[in-house]
Amino acid sequence: MEKLTVIKVGGKIVEEEQTLQQLLKDFSFVEGHKVLVHGGGRSATKIASQLGIESKMVNGRRITDAQMLQVVTMVYGGLVNKNIVAGLQALDINALGLTGADMNIMRSDKRPVGEVDYGYVGDVKEVNAGLLASLIEQGIVPVLAPLTHDKKGNLLNTNADTIAGEAAKALSSYFDVTLMFCFEKKGVLQDENDDESVISEIDRISFQQLVNEGVIQGGMIPKLENSFQAIDAGVKEVIITQASEIHKNSGTRVC
Amino acid sequence: MEKLTVIKVGGKIVEEEQTLQQLLKDFSFVEGHKVLVHGGGRSATKIASQLGIESKMVNGRRITDAQMLQVVTMVYGGLVNKNIVAGLQALDINALGLTGADMNIMRSDKRPVGEVDYGYVGDVKEVNAGLLASLIEQGIVPVLAPLTHDKKGNLLNTNADTIAGEAAKALSSYFDVTLMFCFEKKGVLQDENDDESVISEIDRISFQQLVNEGVIQGGMIPKLENSFQAIDAGVKEVIITQASEIHKNSGTRVC
Repeated sequence: MEKLTVIKVGGKIVEEEQTLQQLLKDFSFVEGHKVLVHGGGRSATKIASQLGIESKMVNGRRITDAQMLQVVTMVYGGLVNKNIVAGLQALDINALGLTGADMNIMRSDKRPVGEVDYGYVGDVKEVNAGLLASLIEQGIVPVLAPLTHDKKGNLLNTNADTIAGEAAKALSSYFDVTLMFCFEKKGVLQDENDDESVISEIDRISFQQLVNEGVIQGGMIPKLENSFQAIDAGVKEVIITQASEIHKNSGTRVC
Repeated sequence: MEKLTVIKVGGKIVEEEQTLQQLLKDFSFVEGHKVLVHGGGRSATKIASQLGIESKMVNGRRITDAQMLQVVTMVYGGLVNKNIVAGLQALDINALGLTGADMNIMRSDKRPVGEVDYGYVGDVKEVNAGLLASLIEQGIVPVLAPLTHDKKGNLLNTNADTIAGEAAKALSSYFDVTLMFCFEKKGVLQDENDDESVISEIDRISFQQLVNEGVIQGGMIPKLENSFQAIDAGVKEVIITQASEIHKNSGTRVC
């Protein structure tokens, strides 16, 4: 099978012109087939605020009421996604911007109301990767916005890490997939005060150890749990790294 | 060659939930391969105004400065386009929302500054219809937003009639194309006060006659001139009709 890299970048880096241009350049150096998955939360918050709509967050997750759904549809599906696509085209990368509704690539269910009503937020139920895989084989580079749909006419706000994970898993039937999560540091750090103390490889055993020792904590725990789950589902490797390093062979390799 | 219908609908009809749902239903009844091209000007004006950005129009065309480009990117590429896509998916139509930047399907040049500086407005220079045609053959229904790009990283606001015409012309190498323009009336009227007085067919000779007689005037003249130009470029027929009639064999046929 051919190699495919699915790269998830957070909102921050794609929302400022200068960091975006650098990211797109770095992304253009990534060899082989590739997919870019982006966030856009900061822009959504900013545009919402300009429209007089308050952003409500619970546990770092956005509450998406009908008005906020309009905002994220505009910002994720339009502003952020299409700027990335146009920027990649300028670098001769044949990008195609997609939400989960496009070609029905990702269908989700609206999250049931529990202790929190997250509103129009989707949990992914089905990925149709066949047509996507054939486009990738033809040289297309999909750019995925963090939006899915319920196949009943509603778009749903969906976590970008989840989109990246689900796309990577589904595309594993067609490619040898590397899933790459970009965050602020060069990888998972042995010492949080030393940016160079990147742990080069983490497996399930060392993961448990590092959690027990308190080296890995907070938001990194679910990120790594999701990584192991992706590997169980067929993804070849997961790399946790910094956006500026995506074209290098660095970061933390989860296996 | 197989038949393909390229249908352009104005902004108004796709911007209100009720008329949008009816349009999507009518569109779902159109037989054979199809493409939907949409506007979105009213929503752009509304969102711009909510963001404190003034809409400036010259001869019915929007002046698109940097701020307004952001608005139309959000509204055309995101809000309007993705709502249509999700709505069509609910009707089991495998829609794919696209701007000209996606898969580089439509490249344009920024309009040179003449008497008017229209800003980030594009005049179409190149249509890459090959991949689009192959997706259509696979059952995909493209939904085109009125945005193109210059292949240098800039999105450009582009007239939806032009997008429809250029797409129809380029796709004529692969399909027998019917290009359909929807407007408020059932077709070109013999008597503007009688909505039922639709002229069933207009050719170049009758067009000149009708213009001379003052029956055809105003914005209908360039619409018909564009229609004849599309036919010269290989489009099989152009139909001018009302959105509610797109699945019927009615309206004014330009040939």
